[in-house]
Amino acid sequence: MPENSFQLDPRLAADCTEIGELGLCKLLLMNDARYPWVILVPQQPDLVEILDLLPLQRTALYIEIETVMEAMQRACSPHKLNVAALGNMVRQLHVHIIARQEGDAAWPGPVWGKGEAVKYENAARETLVRKIAQELGL
Amino acid sequence: MPENSFQLDPRLAADCTEIGELGLCKLLLMNDARYPWVILVPQQPDLVEILDLLPLQRTALYIEIETVMEAMQRACSPHKLNVAALGNMVRQLHVHIIARQEGDAAWPGPVWGKGEAVKYENAARETLVRKIAQELGL
Repeated sequence: MPENSFQLDPRLAADCTEIGELGLCKLLLMNDARYPWVILVPQQPDLVEILDLLPLQRTALYIEIETVMEAMQRACSPHKLNVAALGNMVRQLHVHIIARQEGDAAWPGPVWGKGEAVKYENAARETLVRKIAQELGL
Repeated sequence: MPENSFQLDPRLAADCTEIGELGLCKLLLMNDARYPWVILVPQQPDLVEILDLLPLQRTALYIEIETVMEAMQRACSPHKLNVAALGNMVRQLHVHIIARQEGDAAWPGPVWGKGEAVKYENAARETLVRKIAQELGL
């Protein structure tokens, strides 16, 4: 593999299940059944900030974020979507999209750093992965 | 004033100082001296999600987010930028851009819901407002 090729951060790989690949990003489901929570990871090496992307790649990222937000609205009917690029813990550029409901485990606070993740049952995870993938035509 | 005109949410108005106006967004400084923290508010009525913006307005929002991120990098030299549209507390669409440093008051967690805001001294707030405005040519 070329030295500078994209490699998914091991912590994201450990915490998530892959839903599929969009044009620029890999789409992951966070393994936390408390909230439908997906993560987009642009598949380019050495990215930390959105500003590290080339202008055309940024446009691709924004279109993919919008497309995934629409899919999450259809799949999960959230009270509010939370969209964020933080990167304090995992420095590899990644964008969270979380379908929030009033009264969910962290409501109205943010989901990060709130208690321990509740792992999905395999069947429930696979059902949600399939539902989101289907909404995206993957 | 026409019934559907833009009005800044009273909580954002109370917690922030206006830095200036970009093409689409009003730019605010959060009155919390623990982190350089700005908020973009698209000046259109009845917005909750980014998806509520028209496509051209979304493009304007993304360009303004990038421009402000660049200004915050120049003004504050952050270890990491945090960019987020949450809206669980204040439903009016707004985008946070926060210049994070390793070891700041919430590091490496998110800033939201972390203790009480530390108000700026007037002079320090005005200095930062002027610095960010200058980086943006406002």
